[in-house]
Amino acid sequence: MSTVTEARIEADPTVPIIRITRDFAGTPEQLFRAHTDPEIFVRWVGPDSITSRIDHWDARTGGSWRYVSTHGDDEHGFRGCFHEVRPDRIVQTFTYEGQPDSVALGTLWFEDLGNGRARLHTQSLVDSFEARDMFLASGMEVGVNDGYAKLDEMLGQGSV
Amino acid sequence: MSTVTEARIEADPTVPIIRITRDFAGTPEQLFRAHTDPEIFVRWVGPDSITSRIDHWDARTGGSWRYVSTHGDDEHGFRGCFHEVRPDRIVQTFTYEGQPDSVALGTLWFEDLGNGRARLHTQSLVDSFEARDMFLASGMEVGVNDGYAKLDEMLGQGSV
Repeated sequence: MSTVTEARIEADPTVPIIRITRDFAGTPEQLFRAHTDPEIFVRWVGPDSITSRIDHWDARTGGSWRYVSTHGDDEHGFRGCFHEVRPDRIVQTFTYEGQPDSVALGTLWFEDLGNGRARLHTQSLVDSFEARDMFLASGMEVGVNDGYAKLDEMLGQGSV
Repeated sequence: MSTVTEARIEADPTVPIIRITRDFAGTPEQLFRAHTDPEIFVRWVGPDSITSRIDHWDARTGGSWRYVSTHGDDEHGFRGCFHEVRPDRIVQTFTYEGQPDSVALGTLWFEDLGNGRARLHTQSLVDSFEARDMFLASGMEVGVNDGYAKLDEMLGQGSV
């Protein structure tokens, strides 16, 4: 099995979904913590050019979340609810507050690759191909790759 | 404009969405209450053959919900989270616990038709056409039409 060290970002040909696959030198339990512990999440999420802070975070089935990313004087809010949080799978909604009526349904799961490694799978579903393709054209891969590189570092330092 | 007294249930040809349109002799405010007040919701939701009870209900942005429908000795649970609850629009997730990994993202909005009438619009998005078409083939129109007929009656009685 080849190792996916750069995030693989794929647009589904038949449904408005973006799928991301990425391997990490960490266990499924560590990937779960990286996505549910707000102190850990806020340190790696997004591009290197931004800083994020948690506004609200309740990572359990039926909970909700909001964080704010700062880039110079610009602030951008993101929010959603947790439909399900369990060790092998997280389902949550996602809205960028700059486009308050756009909602994505995100599903994450963690595949154990053995030897302390795991593969992160994410799926993000929206209600039109236009919305999906605008997101793909927005430069989102910078945030994805910068964020996962920060998470790599944190895993290497034993801080996850 | 023609009046939609039987629910119009439509499968989108290009994305895995079911859209439902239905007119009511009630205001947008009443339709909002019918979908957010648990005492009202539980009296009309679903087919005539079932009885429902609320297990948990917190109809606000970031809240969550669960209800149980009983048919003879069978109990069926449904649950989700409220991504957004505002007077003109509700966005929520939806899972039937018999298929715990299937999740729909539902959006409802209320169009004022004037003269005390309103049109309900719903959109239900899932991640595959197979899941969408199985739901359409499940007899869901019985629950939809029975439920809205009960809501018609409750609006007529002034109990919404």
